[in-house]
Amino acid sequence: MKQAAPIIAALAVVGAFSTAVYAQTADRAIKYRQGVMSAQGWHMGVLGGMAKGTRPYDKDAAQRSAMFVDQLMLMHNEGFIPGSDKGAPTKAKSEIWSQKAKFDKNAADAKVETAKLAASAGNGLDALRAAIGPVGRACQNCHDDFQAKDYSN
Amino acid sequence: MKQAAPIIAALAVVGAFSTAVYAQTADRAIKYRQGVMSAQGWHMGVLGGMAKGTRPYDKDAAQRSAMFVDQLMLMHNEGFIPGSDKGAPTKAKSEIWSQKAKFDKNAADAKVETAKLAASAGNGLDALRAAIGPVGRACQNCHDDFQAKDYSN
Repeated sequence: MKQAAPIIAALAVVGAFSTAVYAQTADRAIKYRQGVMSAQGWHMGVLGGMAKGTRPYDKDAAQRSAMFVDQLMLMHNEGFIPGSDKGAPTKAKSEIWSQKAKFDKNAADAKVETAKLAASAGNGLDALRAAIGPVGRACQNCHDDFQAKDYSN
Repeated sequence: MKQAAPIIAALAVVGAFSTAVYAQTADRAIKYRQGVMSAQGWHMGVLGGMAKGTRPYDKDAAQRSAMFVDQLMLMHNEGFIPGSDKGAPTKAKSEIWSQKAKFDKNAADAKVETAKLAASAGNGLDALRAAIGPVGRACQNCHDDFQAKDYSN
C-alpha cells in the first residue's frame, strides 16, 4: 500500500485531463479529428512548399514531416465516433456513417500513400514530388465524398 | 518530359494545401500546435479513463493511444515558431521564446515519459497506471510554466 498516495496523486492529474477538458464527447471528437487534420495540413504545407520550390528542400525536415503525416493518418478515423455528425461546428457529411465501408476504404487508400511518402520524402526532391501528389489526391478524394463545403452550424 | 502533366496536376492539388489553407503563418502555427495538443488530450482521456476505471482496460486501444501520445509529443514544438506568440487566440506565454532552453528541456523530459508510456501501456492496467502519472505531471509542469490561464485575445 506504500504506493497508494503517489498513484492517487498521479491519477488526479490525469483526471484533470480526462474529465474536465477531454471527455470523449461528440464535441470533443469533432475537435480531435479537426486537430489531427489541421496538423496534417501543416506538414503537408511544409512538404508542398518544398515540392513547389517555395521552401528549400531539406532532407531531414521532409522526412520528419512525411513521417508525421503518415502517423496522423492512423489517428484520423478514431474521431468519427457514432453521433459525432453534430456537436461542435463540423463539415462532416452524414454519409461518413451511412457509407462507412467506403469511408474506411478511402482512409486505408490514403494510408498506403502516406506510408509511401514517409518512406521516400527524405530521398531527394524528385522522390518527394513523386510521392506527395498521390497523397494530396487521396486527401481530396475523401474530402470530395465526405466533406461539406460549409460548417454545419 | 512524359511525366510533366501529371506532376503539374499533382502539385496543383498540393498547392491547394500549402497556399490557400495551410501557409506557415503565425496564425496557422498556433492552430497547428493547439490541434496537436488537442489530439494528445483526446488520447490522454482514453488512457486516463482506463487508469481511473471509467473505461474498460483494452490492451490494443491502450497501446495505440499511448503510441499516439508519444508520436504527437515530437510534433509539439514545431508549432512554436518565432513570432507566433500572437496571431490566433493563444495561451502561450512569451517566456516560451525568452526561456527557450527551459521550454525545450520540459518538452524533452515529457518525451522521455511518453516513450515509457508507449512502451508499457499495453502491458496491463498496472503498467498503464504506473506510466501515465509521470506523463500527466510532465504536461502539467510545462503548462504551469508556459501556459497562461486565459487566451490572449
